[in-house]
Amino acid sequence: MTASHDDRPPVTVLGLGAMGTALARALLGAGHPVTAWNRTAAKAEPLVELGAARAATPGEAIAAGRLVFACLLDYASVHDVLDDHADALRGRVLVNLTNGTPVQARTFSEWAACHGADYLGGGIMAVPPQIGTPDAFVLYSGSRSAFETSRGALDTFGESHYLGGAPGLAALQDIALLSGMYGMFTGIIHALALVRSEGTPLTEFVPRLDRWLSSMSGWAHAAAHQIDAGDYASDVPSNLGMQAAGFVNLTRAAQEQGVSPELLEPLGALLRRRAADGHGHEDITGIIELLQKGTPA
Amino acid sequence: MTASHDDRPPVTVLGLGAMGTALARALLGAGHPVTAWNRTAAKAEPLVELGAARAATPGEAIAAGRLVFACLLDYASVHDVLDDHADALRGRVLVNLTNGTPVQARTFSEWAACHGADYLGGGIMAVPPQIGTPDAFVLYSGSRSAFETSRGALDTFGESHYLGGAPGLAALQDIALLSGMYGMFTGIIHALALVRSEGTPLTEFVPRLDRWLSSMSGWAHAAAHQIDAGDYASDVPSNLGMQAAGFVNLTRAAQEQGVSPELLEPLGALLRRRAADGHGHEDITGIIELLQKGTPA
Ligand SMILES: NC(=O)c1ccc[n+]([C@@H]2O[C@H](COP(=O)([O-])OP(=O)(O)OC[C@H]3O[C@@H](n4cnc5c(N)ncnc54)[C@H](OP(=O)(O)O)[C@@H]3O)[C@@H](O)[C@H]2O)c1
Ligand SMILES: NC(=O)c1ccc[n+]([C@@H]2O[C@H](COP(=O)([O-])OP(=O)(O)OC[C@H]3O[C@@H](n4cnc5c(N)ncnc54)[C@H](OP(=O)(O)O)[C@@H]3O)[C@@H](O)[C@H]2O)c1
Repeated sequence: MTASHDDRPPVTVLGLGAMGTALARALLGAGHPVTAWNRTAAKAEPLVELGAARAATPGEAIAAGRLVFACLLDYASVHDVLDDHADALRGRVLVNLTNGTPVQARTFSEWAACHGADYLGGGIMAVPPQIGTPDAFVLYSGSRSAFETSRGALDTFGESHYLGGAPGLAALQDIALLSGMYGMFTGIIHALALVRSEGTPLTEFVPRLDRWLSSMSGWAHAAAHQIDAGDYASDVPSNLGMQAAGFVNLTRAAQEQGVSPELLEPLGALLRRRAADGHGHEDITGIIELLQKGTPA
Repeated sequence: MTASHDDRPPVTVLGLGAMGTALARALLGAGHPVTAWNRTAAKAEPLVELGAARAATPGEAIAAGRLVFACLLDYASVHDVLDDHADALRGRVLVNLTNGTPVQARTFSEWAACHGADYLGGGIMAVPPQIGTPDAFVLYSGSRSAFETSRGALDTFGESHYLGGAPGLAALQDIALLSGMYGMFTGIIHALALVRSEGTPLTEFVPRLDRWLSSMSGWAHAAAHQIDAGDYASDVPSNLGMQAAGFVNLTRAAQEQGVSPELLEPLGALLRRRAADGHGHEDITGIIELLQKGTPA
């Protein structure tokens, strides 16, 4: 085996949905021999045309790679695919890029260790078209040696962020980031529904929304500082009492326009509870205390 | 009266909370004679030191200004302040920068017209420290002549966007933008609660969150195009079925970490309903149809 071959070890990709296909393309593009498997075999066709080998079973696919990537719908499908082929994993690096909870990630990491795989968990922070571009980054945690061994291959997906040995960490931050994104999407879709209700073309409105959201994005930094310091009462440009009063208008305006306020209401309820608890003069950041009781673990 | 005096007409500011004070400062800074009134009189002190005149009653304040700005908590407080002084408004320009719903804005515009004021409604897209900086913009709708007459004064607050003659338009877009912002805040606070539950300092995590949210902010444009076209099924990099499956992990991870999922759940419920209705292969943007039934008015 030549040194250059060693730089581009043979890899296996299990799961050829939108994301698994994007990962396999990036690996092929970087010169890795790729063996691919998917439950619905037809999805391998485009990759075979690009030079990938198709395996008939997950076991056959695993046997062909030194690094094994799994990118399936969820942990249930990971078990459907791997449980009957666990022995094939022994001595290999297993990088699991399937979305799951920290507990699922920790439990699966134990399962993998038990079958002799060097295990790395990952969370992909990109949509498939961003894979291989500077927009993509991927969070990893678990075995440091698995991260180092597979580093060259991982870097073909995007920027690789190793968070440490705890196998649940990447899943936790992945889910925190996704939660942040879904909150943003929630606000956007509600805003678009309001503007559409007035008959304004959305493409006209969106540049204004964009500008506004980016001018308010510094809030995350301000909130992080206040929460780390546990001080919600200093330097308050927009007090919670005023915001709770304004929130009533948000809900009422949605109703006036025939838009359901269901996506926004839980925040309104938290603001009202916090105001009733006597925090009206503070910043709204303190609502974190209502989401999460007790001190960090 | 000299031309230069005419360029900086005397103005009245009613309401000296955080925002009213910021507006009055901007007007003073630009050279307008400012007469200010606030229910709690002590809040006028800092402005008096900067050269503002203090009025004893709203009527006295209104009499001193050619342009009258109201920036109060809500429409109930606007009526508390103006109902007994309505006659003083005749022949003046009234710019109301109090947050309210489109219906409140329309109703109040009729009240103002009835009392002979030239009426402009506004929505301030900034926090008080941004007033007078390039970060601020303000939406206006209502009387075009009121907008043109007061334009010089308005531009001291930030960029002035005139949306048209319908008095409710500025309120509608203001509330749409605020709704977008609160959605973003919802996601951020939930993300911070998850990361705090693991003991990670939030200031360490926030740059990653920032990067992620800005890499996903293009979603608003993509969504606007899909919704304007009414096509949720073409070019779908992240299908709704996969996202509904992943959303289960978001809720479960929050529970694992002792964080209430209440802020995110309504979106999860919409994704599941839309998937159950047979739209799993489409983009998630189609959930707008569940928020808003029927066609735009
Ligand atoms: N797309 C994104 O934007 C994105 C971004 C970041 C992370 N992710 C994560 O990446 C993973 C894959 O997402 P995707 O976008 O590729 O989803 P997808 O296009 O819906 O593909 C799902 C994949 O899982 C397979 N699968 C589902 N159930 C299975 C089972 N019981 N047994 C065997 N295979 C099964 C499917 O096989 P069939 O083809 O046979 O159905 C397919 O390969 C998910 O965990 C997702 O959260 C996706
Ligand atoms: N701060 C922001 O970030 C921001 C941003 C955009 C828009 N706005 C809007 O600007 C408006 C004012 O906000 P703010 O931040 O200045 O709020 P604030 O600091 O809480 O001030 C509220 C103002 O309303 C007055 N007020 C309340 N009830 C009253 C009543 N019944 N009669 C007479 N006066 C009454 C208060 O007088 P007292 O001093 O006597 O209590 C005070 O002047 C709101 O509509 C808000 O939505 C604020």
